[in-house]
Amino acid sequence: MSIRTSIATVSLSGSLETKMTAIAEAGFDGFEVFEPDLVSSPQRPKEIAARAADLGLTIDLYQPFRDVDSTNPDTFARNLIRADRKFDVMEELGCDLLLVCSSPLPTAVRDDGQLAEQLHTVAERAQERGIRLAYEALAWGAHINTYRHAWQIVADVDHPALGTCLDSFHILSRGDDPSGIRDIDGDKIFFLQLADAPHLVMDVLQWSRHHRCFPGQGNFDLGAFGAHVVASGYDGPWSLEIFNDVFRHSATGRTAADAHRSLLYLQEQVGRYPHATDQLFDPPPPGPIENIVSVRLASGPVRAPEVAWTLGHLGFEMTAAHSTHGLQLFSHGPLAVAVDTTVDTLWTAPGVPAHLPAVAQIGVRSGDPGEWLTRAHALGVPAQAVGMPGTDTDLAEVVRMSVTDATSLDLRSRSSVQSWLEAFDLVPRASAPPSSPFLTDVDHIALAVPADSWDGIMLLLRSVLGMTPHEGQDVVDAVGLVRSQALTLTTATGVIRLSLNMVPGRVSDTDPLPAARRGGVSHVAFGTHDAIAAAESMVARGFLPLQISPNYYDDLAARFDVPGDVLATLQRLGILYDANGSGGEFFHFFTPTVGDDLFFEVVQRVGDYAGYGETNSAVRLAAQLR
Amino acid sequence: MSIRTSIATVSLSGSLETKMTAIAEAGFDGFEVFEPDLVSSPQRPKEIAARAADLGLTIDLYQPFRDVDSTNPDTFARNLIRADRKFDVMEELGCDLLLVCSSPLPTAVRDDGQLAEQLHTVAERAQERGIRLAYEALAWGAHINTYRHAWQIVADVDHPALGTCLDSFHILSRGDDPSGIRDIDGDKIFFLQLADAPHLVMDVLQWSRHHRCFPGQGNFDLGAFGAHVVASGYDGPWSLEIFNDVFRHSATGRTAADAHRSLLYLQEQVGRYPHATDQLFDPPPPGPIENIVSVRLASGPVRAPEVAWTLGHLGFEMTAAHSTHGLQLFSHGPLAVAVDTTVDTLWTAPGVPAHLPAVAQIGVRSGDPGEWLTRAHALGVPAQAVGMPGTDTDLAEVVRMSVTDATSLDLRSRSSVQSWLEAFDLVPRASAPPSSPFLTDVDHIALAVPADSWDGIMLLLRSVLGMTPHEGQDVVDAVGLVRSQALTLTTATGVIRLSLNMVPGRVSDTDPLPAARRGGVSHVAFGTHDAIAAAESMVARGFLPLQISPNYYDDLAARFDVPGDVLATLQRLGILYDANGSGGEFFHFFTPTVGDDLFFEVVQRVGDYAGYGETNSAVRLAAQLR
Repeated sequence: MSIRTSIATVSLSGSLETKMTAIAEAGFDGFEVFEPDLVSSPQRPKEIAARAADLGLTIDLYQPFRDVDSTNPDTFARNLIRADRKFDVMEELGCDLLLVCSSPLPTAVRDDGQLAEQLHTVAERAQERGIRLAYEALAWGAHINTYRHAWQIVADVDHPALGTCLDSFHILSRGDDPSGIRDIDGDKIFFLQLADAPHLVMDVLQWSRHHRCFPGQGNFDLGAFGAHVVASGYDGPWSLEIFNDVFRHSATGRTAADAHRSLLYLQEQVGRYPHATDQLFDPPPPGPIENIVSVRLASGPVRAPEVAWTLGHLGFEMTAAHSTHGLQLFSHGPLAVAVDTTVDTLWTAPGVPAHLPAVAQIGVRSGDPGEWLTRAHALGVPAQAVGMPGTDTDLAEVVRMSVTDATSLDLRSRSSVQSWLEAFDLVPRASAPPSSPFLTDVDHIALAVPADSWDGIMLLLRSVLGMTPHEGQDVVDAVGLVRSQALTLTTATGVIRLSLNMVPGRVSDTDPLPAARRGGVSHVAFGTHDAIAAAESMVARGFLPLQISPNYYDDLAARFDVPGDVLATLQRLGILYDANGSGGEFFHFFTPTVGDDLFFEVVQRVGDYAGYGETNSAVRLAAQLR
Repeated sequence: MSIRTSIATVSLSGSLETKMTAIAEAGFDGFEVFEPDLVSSPQRPKEIAARAADLGLTIDLYQPFRDVDSTNPDTFARNLIRADRKFDVMEELGCDLLLVCSSPLPTAVRDDGQLAEQLHTVAERAQERGIRLAYEALAWGAHINTYRHAWQIVADVDHPALGTCLDSFHILSRGDDPSGIRDIDGDKIFFLQLADAPHLVMDVLQWSRHHRCFPGQGNFDLGAFGAHVVASGYDGPWSLEIFNDVFRHSATGRTAADAHRSLLYLQEQVGRYPHATDQLFDPPPPGPIENIVSVRLASGPVRAPEVAWTLGHLGFEMTAAHSTHGLQLFSHGPLAVAVDTTVDTLWTAPGVPAHLPAVAQIGVRSGDPGEWLTRAHALGVPAQAVGMPGTDTDLAEVVRMSVTDATSLDLRSRSSVQSWLEAFDLVPRASAPPSSPFLTDVDHIALAVPADSWDGIMLLLRSVLGMTPHEGQDVVDAVGLVRSQALTLTTATGVIRLSLNMVPGRVSDTDPLPAARRGGVSHVAFGTHDAIAAAESMVARGFLPLQISPNYYDDLAARFDVPGDVLATLQRLGILYDANGSGGEFFHFFTPTVGDDLFFEVVQRVGDYAGYGETNSAVRLAAQLR
């Protein structure tokens, strides 16, 4: 037996029919009917009930019933009539549980005894109709705004038709301690609603109505929360109730799939706590993972020479070409970059314009890619075991999953990396052998992500791969604002760092977003032990450093104690600088954009510097735009 | 002599060069250099100074200098060096005023005496360099966060090189009483920064950094604020410092023009207070204005039959056609709707795709359009006196100004309305004369507005026309969220109501926004004395009411005491209902969308109902999408 999963229809976009279909396809057991969805639907409650049954879905909750209590007796009497009408609808729906929210109105009852009395009256009427009420504390309720207070009232009323509903948002957004949930009689928890949310300092009602997200997409500790719920003995559905502006107009099916995955991920998190129930979903653990060993860029034929030219500046040399697939292999010490000179249908989703050049694949070495395949499938991620075109690689040795519409992540066994390289034909060296390599590894890869894919990608990277998100940043520059989010995974051989940059939405047809922003810019950052030496080597190869404003170096001189001769060198080579106040330093420089959508960075980390030089973004972009 | 106008470069999008050019073209006298703009600029400070001089602009302020004070003596010593470096830059810029913000850091000095001492030290060094410091309280400053406290410290230091800077955002966002500004010695107010903001309940720092707007675009009472500043004797520049995510990537020139207009508008507001100085800009007052007398729709040839068909349902009859211009005139009692069956180049801005059909012109009767022309020009709005094509109308009798890229507002004299009508050729009646008219007036017109035009349009309607904005609404429906804002103007003959609906931005290339949302939907709402009779008349003309969900009427029965037979009639005719709790009622119904971008509404207002039935939007859209 496993935990039943459910979702409120408000969490998804579209008509009620569209939502029900997507909910069933995503694998949920049931759903909550959000009243406005029913009120807008051409289907009568009985038809909705029949459709749900056809889809194999239970209708777990009807919601919300607001403001039932009132200090005005006439209003309360009117509310009882209103409740009767809703009981009629629920009867037709075949749903026996109604969500009752605490009232935020000035007329809310503020006396516990009177409130218990009114709730008792409603519970009596509900019971006559075979209906139960789940009473929930809204975080902004006038009198009842904590789960403890709501539970206390429910206990006072002590009526079989009245229980409580727990909602993680209402509890955690207030900073309340959820451990008291353990003390609630699990049989009297009639329903459980789950929502995550990013840390935002704003009015809790606005936060709740616009910025909730699925577990694993925000910053709440829902693993601990769920463990408390398990400890209470609750055995009803785990249901998602998400109000999110982006989800409201995102593709329904994709959002539903993310939603279901988030509940699986949450159960895995809860399972790490002692005494977790064996009803929890327990996916196969993450497989072994090492570091990024290859990057595949899609250039298309037009941009291929420009990509090759820039890689040449970075000390890469084209060492091989694929006989049949238009792939060119560039090497630099241990680093391998493949360039697709054709548009590869493997990586472009239907209908998505290819912003070229782009990062098409990120290759990460794994001791056992097959373990990742099992885990991904258990979490509902459509990962595939694939062979490299034209190689005899065992299918189980490369496991591919889509990160964005344009980029896939390949987990590769050591032998698959080898046979991949061997599938290329060596080309005669075009020039003298490269001098000793000055790039050491892939420090990070930044991917441009559209707003409506953002939360799904965060969930994928966190749930399947176990990456850790860091504090998000809003980076302001001359032409706008980019939301940026780094995720890291510490492996046996180092740190894998990915950074997501939200592609700014176009606010109108005439929005003058510069070309370098339209598709969102991705970049690949290579690590070096010595940024100055690396830049000198690149200049020797013909690289023209970005022209960084001399005013920037005057400002560095005002902010940091960097010696004047070092500053002069940094300025000559277009190297930017940051420091973290605890001895950590960061030296980094950039290539111009290749096409509109890709550039390269070279970074040197000193000491414990863990950032990405975000403070220099505006200066970098200004130089690239010139 | 008039007040000098200024603007911080952070308020605009683009490079520093782009900003300076736009600032000069918009008519400002000077500007504040926002340090990150200088740091990103390829121009050295001396070049910037020369360019500003060429443009006729003064550099009024260099900003910001942060966190000057510190409880750590080493840090304070380092800050003095940092200040020296900035004085170097200012010397080259030829700018003698530096903005110094109160510190929000844990290391901020929290003893007034010590703080005064440190500021005195900095002021001494500044004075040696011929530089003055304007000390400002940030609303989130650790110790100094009110203008009174900042002023008290400045008075304590009593140094000629130290004054205070007032910023309306930092003062009004805290709910502080600005009247104390009158008690400050005007000579010690070294600078004035102005920003408006919408009412938002959120963290003040986030509010400040992302949601400021120009005076007349938000909810602060800046007229009263400015009157206090005038009373203090301050005679420096009035400068705009706006941090706004949309402005950050909007067209620089248009934002700068709006910015300058906002300062003119603000001065007019301030001028209404007693004892205002004669330095204030004082534009010609609004002219006479009556009601909306005509609407011109652009249908294009393809949609013309569908528009005509829908107008026919609404009881309009095509009574005339223009001999040469492809205009068809539809009449219903006092109402005149002209339909452009060609795409009229008058109303499409270059590069803006025409979403047809659209509201191309709104005709409002005025006793003297010429007065409006004078006022519009004084406020920098490019209004035009135009003749109707093919008529001999005196140019001064029709004054046109653009509201959105697609819609203009025409102020028309009575005789111009008459001659406009006479320019049409009567067509033979196609049917029996219409029965008695059931529509009385244009109740409101809702226009779709892109996000980056929103604030500019708000400012236009408020400044030139004197319209009053009402509380904004976020309307949630099945496929997203629409920001909606009503503005009204009470005239001699009634109320002119316009409603702006923000066109949702596309969050990605694959964003599945339905067709009915892509260009944003506009609509024209006609008033009636009896919505049921109007709907019956329309059904008699072949109108098929929208199929509203029966569940909606069940919900009405639960929420309101509407008699069952009335509900049945409303349901049969697809009429929606709302009530305001004080006896006011609202009956309204809709046509299907004509094309994707336009529909019509018929509304009946009862009692003091002043809204627009926003609560029914989701039900309306669901029915229209089916």
